[in-house]
Amino acid sequence: MRGAVLHGPRDIRVEARPDPTIEQPTDAVIRLAATCVCGSDLWPYRGIEPVHEPSPMGHEYIGVVEEVGSDVRTIKPGDFVVGSFFASDNTCEICQAGYQSRCVHAELVGAIGTQAEYARIPLADGTLVATPGMPDPDLVPSLLAASDVLGTGWFGAVAAEAGPGKTVAVVGDGAVGLLGVPAAKQLSSDRIIIFSRHADRQQLAKEFGATDVIVERGDDGVATLKELTGGLGAHSVIEAVGTQESMMQAIRATRPGGHVGYVGVSHGVELPGQELFFSGVHLHGGPAPVRRFLPELIQLIGNRDIDPGKVFDLTLPLEQAAEGYRAMDERRAIKALLHP
Amino acid sequence: MRGAVLHGPRDIRVEARPDPTIEQPTDAVIRLAATCVCGSDLWPYRGIEPVHEPSPMGHEYIGVVEEVGSDVRTIKPGDFVVGSFFASDNTCEICQAGYQSRCVHAELVGAIGTQAEYARIPLADGTLVATPGMPDPDLVPSLLAASDVLGTGWFGAVAAEAGPGKTVAVVGDGAVGLLGVPAAKQLSSDRIIIFSRHADRQQLAKEFGATDVIVERGDDGVATLKELTGGLGAHSVIEAVGTQESMMQAIRATRPGGHVGYVGVSHGVELPGQELFFSGVHLHGGPAPVRRFLPELIQLIGNRDIDPGKVFDLTLPLEQAAEGYRAMDERRAIKALLHP
Repeated sequence: MRGAVLHGPRDIRVEARPDPTIEQPTDAVIRLAATCVCGSDLWPYRGIEPVHEPSPMGHEYIGVVEEVGSDVRTIKPGDFVVGSFFASDNTCEICQAGYQSRCVHAELVGAIGTQAEYARIPLADGTLVATPGMPDPDLVPSLLAASDVLGTGWFGAVAAEAGPGKTVAVVGDGAVGLLGVPAAKQLSSDRIIIFSRHADRQQLAKEFGATDVIVERGDDGVATLKELTGGLGAHSVIEAVGTQESMMQAIRATRPGGHVGYVGVSHGVELPGQELFFSGVHLHGGPAPVRRFLPELIQLIGNRDIDPGKVFDLTLPLEQAAEGYRAMDERRAIKALLHP
Repeated sequence: MRGAVLHGPRDIRVEARPDPTIEQPTDAVIRLAATCVCGSDLWPYRGIEPVHEPSPMGHEYIGVVEEVGSDVRTIKPGDFVVGSFFASDNTCEICQAGYQSRCVHAELVGAIGTQAEYARIPLADGTLVATPGMPDPDLVPSLLAASDVLGTGWFGAVAAEAGPGKTVAVVGDGAVGLLGVPAAKQLSSDRIIIFSRHADRQQLAKEFGATDVIVERGDDGVATLKELTGGLGAHSVIEAVGTQESMMQAIRATRPGGHVGYVGVSHGVELPGQELFFSGVHLHGGPAPVRRFLPELIQLIGNRDIDPGKVFDLTLPLEQAAEGYRAMDERRAIKALLHP
């Protein structure tokens, strides 16, 4: 089969890769209906995370089940499925508490590489959620978004305890931050403020339900937010970047007793203990347990209550994956969908 | 009046201080029934927090109201009152959300110095809670504990979401950590594990309801805790020290999706963002909003449901405050009560 492989900084090649097969009796092999490039793929692409050997890329996926292992019970060939970037058994105590990304048997799908024609998905019964029948083709981008960026933005909003009566702020206008907006809206938040200096992203945020835009960043952005919130700060802040500046902006934008939901993969962050202590905020985040939210997200997408597929502003054949990476790296695209 | 003043590292003197008076119409002046030395007083006492001028000490207090300002409505002379180390109006949006220690009008009582015969308490209506009549003398230590250490341990347990079905671990066997134990018990936690290597403190923790003791610290302590919890870690961890080692021990002792309630005043702590991210824990803490809990704590103490006064294992006249500091510094005493 064909698949995208990172050979070194900014060197993505679509090349022949071995066809995946059932390796464990709990595996499934799926034929990808669509896949995409994640903001987190840009860390190794940019050389910020070192790449020591050619690495298959991609961890977002939807598709049709081709084959299942002998122990798979609930998923069958022909099912159209959505899964998360962490395979999980969905039965252990940690999964049952809603933290499937930290399942005691968790496996990172990123190591498998779903920017490809086919993929082996471990722990198929726990990891994959089948849609009710074959989805309408126009729903494919939204279902693909559910696999990671929507699920991650959703977790950010839930971790930030967005909800009725709350002012929610979003730090980061990448795909995850943008999808924190419909999550906060669906959770009935009163007011949704996004930090963004890009007109196209501001526009999309407003379509998703943002009520206010702040163009300043860092402490200037915090000052503007405080002006908008009676000097107190937001009740809930979604952090969707993962840098020192964005984390401090999120913490400082949150009122005492408020909640920071941080989902940007942390890079080089050191949180000053004393400032955090006196901030009095709640801090929760990490790799999103997307599996927790998939049944609800699939239903909301199927009902056309949310349209997260709008974050894909570039669609390419898989063979042109390198252009998808380039466009996102140069911020010419928010997120690139790849058709195998 | 007489009061304790810190002149420099390990130099506490009880000396003449000006009698406090009503300065603002919202003030009250109270005659101290009892006061005490806090673990956090040891930071400046040890010279870790610099002292640039003679500083009145103490922020824990109970006593009888002598005089109130013209705007005070709910507190009157003769009331026996308990207050917190942060004065708060108890009416602003932050107070109403339960974060009185971050009230928009918060004032630190520590600057006033309650290791004295009398003290001026700002924002009396919001800050002070009157007991139902004069308390029995044997309840005085427990009511004094409510003013800070009990309220702080309680907040640690609430922030850690101790409760039914939960295994709670406590990092720190000082007075605050020890009082996290009855808090976790009162919140109906299943199992309460304390990290302690001191026989007297282990004994007190057991009297308060601890079910297990771990003598190892740091990563060794975490390993032992994991053995006790099926490899997963505790659901809820109360951090009551405030050092880098204790914070990392608390975070690592918590299962993914679990809660760390940290109430040890943070000193020199830098939290590694990436480890925190992948830990998947909830982190909440800071200066305890003791005022939130005071009505409930006063009732529990009055009903003799809890006996937090047991943490005072040394009682001295105020004039011997220096010995109280020395005994706590040398860990000969858990906590010293001072009688003015």
